Parts: sequence; C-alpha cells; structure tokens
Amino acid sequence: MVKPERKVLKQWLAEHADEAAGFLSRLIKAASTAGREKEAQELMAEKFRHLGMAVDTWVQGGDDLFNHPHFCSPRTDFIDSPNVVGTLQGTGGGRSLIINGHIDVVPPGEDAAWERSPWSGYVGDGRVYGRGATDMKGGTLSALLAVEALHSLGVKLKGDIILASVVEEESGGSGTLASILRGYKADGAFIPEPSEMVIYPQQQGSMWFRMAVKGRVAHGGTRYLGVSAIENAILVINQVRELEQERNARLADEPLYHGVPIPVPINIGKIAGGSWPSSVPDLVTLEGRMGVAPGENMADARRELEQSMSLLGAKDEWFREHPVQLEWFGARWLPGGIGLDHPLMNALTDAYRLVKNAKPEIKASPWGTDGGLLTQVGGVPTVVFGPGVTAAAHYPNEYIEMKNVLDAAEIFALAIMEWCGVE
Amino acid sequence: MVKPERKVLKQWLAEHADEAAGFLSRLIKAASTAGREKEAQELMAEKFRHLGMAVDTWVQGGDDLFNHPHFCSPRTDFIDSPNVVGTLQGTGGGRSLIINGHIDVVPPGEDAAWERSPWSGYVGDGRVYGRGATDMKGGTLSALLAVEALHSLGVKLKGDIILASVVEEESGGSGTLASILRGYKADGAFIPEPSEMVIYPQQQGSMWFRMAVKGRVAHGGTRYLGVSAIENAILVINQVRELEQERNARLADEPLYHGVPIPVPINIGKIAGGSWPSSVPDLVTLEGRMGVAPGENMADARRELEQSMSLLGAKDEWFREHPVQLEWFGARWLPGGIGLDHPLMNALTDAYRLVKNAKPEIKASPWGTDGGLLTQVGGVPTVVFGPGVTAAAHYPNEYIEMKNVLDAAEIFALAIMEWCGVE
Repeated sequence: MVKPERKVLKQWLAEHADEAAGFLSRLIKAASTAGREKEAQELMAEKFRHLGMAVDTWVQGGDDLFNHPHFCSPRTDFIDSPNVVGTLQGTGGGRSLIINGHIDVVPPGEDAAWERSPWSGYVGDGRVYGRGATDMKGGTLSALLAVEALHSLGVKLKGDIILASVVEEESGGSGTLASILRGYKADGAFIPEPSEMVIYPQQQGSMWFRMAVKGRVAHGGTRYLGVSAIENAILVINQVRELEQERNARLADEPLYHGVPIPVPINIGKIAGGSWPSSVPDLVTLEGRMGVAPGENMADARRELEQSMSLLGAKDEWFREHPVQLEWFGARWLPGGIGLDHPLMNALTDAYRLVKNAKPEIKASPWGTDGGLLTQVGGVPTVVFGPGVTAAAHYPNEYIEMKNVLDAAEIFALAIMEWCGVE
Repeated sequence: MVKPERKVLKQWLAEHADEAAGFLSRLIKAASTAGREKEAQELMAEKFRHLGMAVDTWVQGGDDLFNHPHFCSPRTDFIDSPNVVGTLQGTGGGRSLIINGHIDVVPPGEDAAWERSPWSGYVGDGRVYGRGATDMKGGTLSALLAVEALHSLGVKLKGDIILASVVEEESGGSGTLASILRGYKADGAFIPEPSEMVIYPQQQGSMWFRMAVKGRVAHGGTRYLGVSAIENAILVINQVRELEQERNARLADEPLYHGVPIPVPINIGKIAGGSWPSSVPDLVTLEGRMGVAPGENMADARRELEQSMSLLGAKDEWFREHPVQLEWFGARWLPGGIGLDHPLMNALTDAYRLVKNAKPEIKASPWGTDGGLLTQVGGVPTVVFGPGVTAAAHYPNEYIEMKNVLDAAEIFALAIMEWCGVE
C-alpha cells in the first residue's frame, strides 16, 4: 500500500484516541520513577510486540558504559530499570529513524500539592493527568500512535523504525548512552519531549554546580568581627550574573533565540547557610544549573564559570584567601543540534504545515534532552518536538492535552513516511 | 572585724586557687545544658550552704511566670532545672546586692571540633576547659570566691548578699524573671558574664526574627519566567543593611559605643531556600538577631524592622503583592542600663583601679544578659562585669584563665565591701 490519504490517517487516530488515553493512563499508573521503571517498560515491550517489532530488553551496565566520559548517573545498579528498544525493519533503501522517549519520571513531590494522586492516570476533559503525562509519556504516545497507525493501515516503510524507551534521562541520560553503545544508531532521530509543538533543531545543554562560599564566624552582636558568608554569597551571585550577561550577549544575534530574554541562563536554585540567628554564618552553599549553548563545548562552559569565580579574588581580598570552592555534581545534559536546512527538519516542518495548516515555530530548547548524546556521541541528527507543555513538567497536577497528542501523532506519521520512504 | 588588708585578701585567693579550679571543673562536668541543670545546681546549693547562706531551691512555674509579658522560653516544664538562691543576711544598715549567674550552658556542638571532651573540665596551663567555663561558670566562680574569702576572713557585711544561680539565660532569661517574681530584689546587682574584664553599665538587648521571602517557581532554563526568591532575599538583606545604618547613626555620639563599628547590629545568621538546582526558588527563609540599644524600647525596635520591610513595597512591585512575612521567634533579651555616675559603678570601678592599677574600660555590652530583666522588671540597678572572654563563649574549646577569675574575685570582694558596707 502506498501512503494513506490524510483523512484516513486522521480518522484512524480519532477512532483510537480513547484507547490511546487508556494506555497512557496505564503508563502513568506504573509510576516509573528512577529505580522502578520495570513495570512501565513491560507495557512498552508489549506494545512494541503488538506493532510487530523485534523487541530488545536489557539492563544497562558494563565498563564501556560506566567508564564512558559521558556516563552520568547517581546509580550503578539498574536491575529494575531495563531499557527497551523495538525495531521494525524497513523493506530497504530508506532512511532509518530512532524515536527516543524516556520512561523515567521525576518524583511527584508533596502529594498534598496534587488535586488527585500523582499516579491517578485520570482521564477527563480531553486530558490525561499524572506524573509523566507531559514529560514525556504523552510525547512517547504520539510516536507509538504514529507507528501503530501506519502499521494498521498497512504502510510498508523502506527505512527502519527504532522506538527506544530509555531510562535515566532525568539524571543525565545514561539510558540513551547505553542504547547508543548497544549499537542503536540511525540516519535521524526524533525526541518527543514537551516542546509545546515547537520544533527544536537545537537543544541547550546544562550542568549542575555547587559552590561553597566561606565566611568567618562571630557573635551577631559583634558581627563586624566576623565575615558573613551570606554577604559573600551575594558577591558570588552578582559575579554569576555578570558572567551570565557576558555569555548571553554572544547569542544576541542567534535567530533561534530571538526574543528569549536569557538564552542560556545560569540559575541559582538552592541556597543554605548559617546555623544560628545570632551568629555570623561562616559557610553558605549555593547550587545551580548552568545552561550550555547548543554549539558550545561543555568543558569550555565549565572553565568560564571557574575563571569567573577566580576573578572574584581580584575584586575582593577575602576571595583571594578563601576562594569559592566550585564543584560540578549531579546531572548534566550535553547540548546538541542540527542545521535548519537538514532534510530531517524538512520532513518534520512539511508534516507540521500539512497537519496544523500553519508555519511551525522553530527555536532552540531552553533545556537539555537525550538529543545531545544522540548527536554528539551517537552521530545521529536529532530534532526535539512533542505535544507536552513545559510548564506542566516537574510540577504538581501534570497533565497532557489529548488533542495535542493526536496532532503530534499525525505529524510524526507524515514525517516518518517522508523520512523513511514508503514502498 | 573591719576590712581585711588587701594583701591578706590576695593571699587567701591565691591559696584557694587550685581548690576553686577544682570546683569549676566539677561544675563543668555537670554538663548543665538546658533541661539538665539539676546536678550543677546541687553543687551550687552545697557551696551556698558551706558559705553559711540560707538556700532556696525551687522549680519555676505558675501563671504569674508563664503569663508574664517578658516570659520567653521554649519550655514550660522545668522539673530538672531548679533555680537556687543563697542569701547571706547583713547586719543591717547596708545596701543589698544580687550577684546573678546563669548555670545553663549552650550545647557543645560537634564533639569533633573539641580537642578534649566539652565536659572534660580539664585544668592545665592556668586554665579550666569545657563548655560553660567562660559563659559563665568561671564568672560565677569569681563571685563565689569573693563571698567565700570575705566569709573566711570573718568580714561582717551590713547589706544582704544574694547569690542567684538561675537557669534559662541562654533561652531568654526566664530563670531570672522567676527569681524576680519570687521576690529577689536588691539595691544593686552584678552579673559576671564574660565581659573580658570590661565594665558594662549598659547592655544591648536583642531579639530574633524570621523572614519568609517569596518568589515564583520556574525551570532554570527559562528562569526569566520565574521570580527568584534568592534575588528577592538580596533586596531584603540590603533593606536590613539600610535600617541598620540608620539605627546606628543615632548612636554615633554615644560615648559607651565610641570606636564600635556597628553598636547595635542586625545580624542575618541563617539563610535557606530552594529545593532543586535547576528550579527558580520560590521561598527563602532568613533568620537573624536584631540588636536593641540600651535605652531603646523593644516594641519600637520591632516596629522599625516591620516598617522597613513594608518600605520594600514602595521600591519593588513584587513586594507590594508578596510582602515579606516577618515573625519574631525564639529568644529575646531586654536591654538594660544605669548611669555612669551610679554609686554601684563607683564601687566597681574603684575596686578595679585598686586591683588592676589601671583605669577600667567602660562600654555598652554588645549582647543581652539577664541585666535587662533585673533593671527593667526588677528595678535593680545592674552592672555586667566578668573574667570570661566573649570570643570563647559558645565555641569549641571554651576555656577560662584562672588569673582573670582571681582578679575578678578580688575586685568583687572590694566592691562588695564598699557597696554593702562592713561592720
């Protein structure tokens, strides 16, 4: 069968919307926080098999992975966190495509902040609710629906389709790294992260840092005999702001960041210091996230923050003798990107125009994804595009609009046929 | 017997120095942190009886105490925290004197920071070591030695001597308040807090505050969509600095604060906010201590900080809609003071000159003591003077120099004779 008529595709999707919402609901109920992704992955494997795919389930590990310079995870035991990849071999002569979705979700936080249980998977008002709905099980569902529709409508693709359901994205992407090291590469990749239907050919990377800022203790009544680590932390934060301005001034003419106030922010997310109201605090710890521009090298960005902190010594004698202790810790995400004229972009933007009857918004993502690893380590050109809403991700009462899931599914289906080719 | 010759007094003190160090060591070993002062108070009661004093031991409580506007304690059960007062009745016609010492000590903190156990009571190199050595068991020992020397040398005082060993000073003085309410008043009082042999006729008060500073959460990659509570906290801290300058400018010509960079500081001692490196923090909590000038009303000082916070709204729209939530919590100490020409001052400064052969330093204390309660609630003119070193108080490896204990004892003995009168 050649390409189905668009209205046939649309109708298939509409007819399967409720079933799809039900599957998403089950995925959410599986509560796949880091370390307990197994149940959700079994649902994914079952779905892949149902689509006629060859299914590869494995627990990541081994020296190749753990010693890889881009391995980043707080864990070394993934026994209940398998990766699952489904492959649908093409008839030959087409371009292959990975659609990569992470199955891990961030912790729900305080239950009290949720109207319903984070794991309710409640379906209503055209939405599905729960942790992971938007980030990114709803996006993964779009891709599944696209492949299932084509499969059901009898479309034979020339290139291979590889659906990778990976773990550990929220901790820095070791699941995708493991998938690349296992040999899963392709001519292109989509990642249906919650882009709000914006197309992200380039993705910001990021990394976390911790700064220890020193002071000297004294009684609060003679605070002039001490040195406040809180006041020193303010100098450090101001220095970070200066560096942020400098780094972002370079991106002022970058079209993909047009209108974005701070393309690659340096966020100070946590502060803690002092132990007694009437003592001068002698230590403040800051924790933050440094954005890395799509074309930037992580090591260069790290060096910039380190140098910026060493500049403090020239401004203030205290910092010459008590330099800020800067540590890179926790998660990091490689930046990534492809050119706007890449054929994968054409396939996706053409599909978008057809389905939405509008010009797509094309931007650089404000956050990291597994796309950095796919492009930089796997050599796989990658575009991020999905139906989720950024503002709902990581927050209570997370949800996804099924209308957007279906639109994204239709766009993926058309783009897949364009990219992989149809017999 | 009339007044002993000074060299007789000095000799008595020198001969009893080792025994005194041993008693201080026992007091330290009794580890009288809040809630477990009983053992140390039994040692005090025994000592008072040995001096021929009438001893009053009681557990504070009752509505008069708990409902008193100046009652300030996190506790309402003082079963293992009795107060002990020893009274030596005078022969009549003299001025009475309270010497007030708190038996409670602050927690020792991490054992690892101490060279020896905080409760070692180690005696060596002319020092006694351990939590409470300087704040203020060493000071109390000076007063005990003074009374014991006079008693042993057969001196008959005209006025009553009241030695009050109270609990709860470190939490805001409810022990002294209870002692006042029980009727212990006098014509004057000494408090041998660690003043480093400086005489404090006036004492700074202080109170603790907590501020909740709001922000609006966002992902760190789009931090411009949020409002950082950390950046707002910096505005709050700057506002506090402005108020501190204003308040201290008023004290610029105050002779007791001559040369003190910031007479009544507002110390920010603790900061905590944010929960994730890559989120914009939506709440920062600040905790601090506001110094209250000796002549100042606590309520006026409170109002000044409250008004200063409300001024933020005029400077920044965010604070109009999200005012700083200011709360007064924890401990507070009333300020207190008497005139420099008060006869109690004369008695003490004359004694100091005789013993030290030098002019005493006279200042306002940079911290609160039980003196505020004694003067403001008890109507007892009070001077703070003692052998301890401020910098050793509340820190690891606390110690006291026995040389200073003996000097202070000699000064107290002379001042007592001058104040109370000798038959």
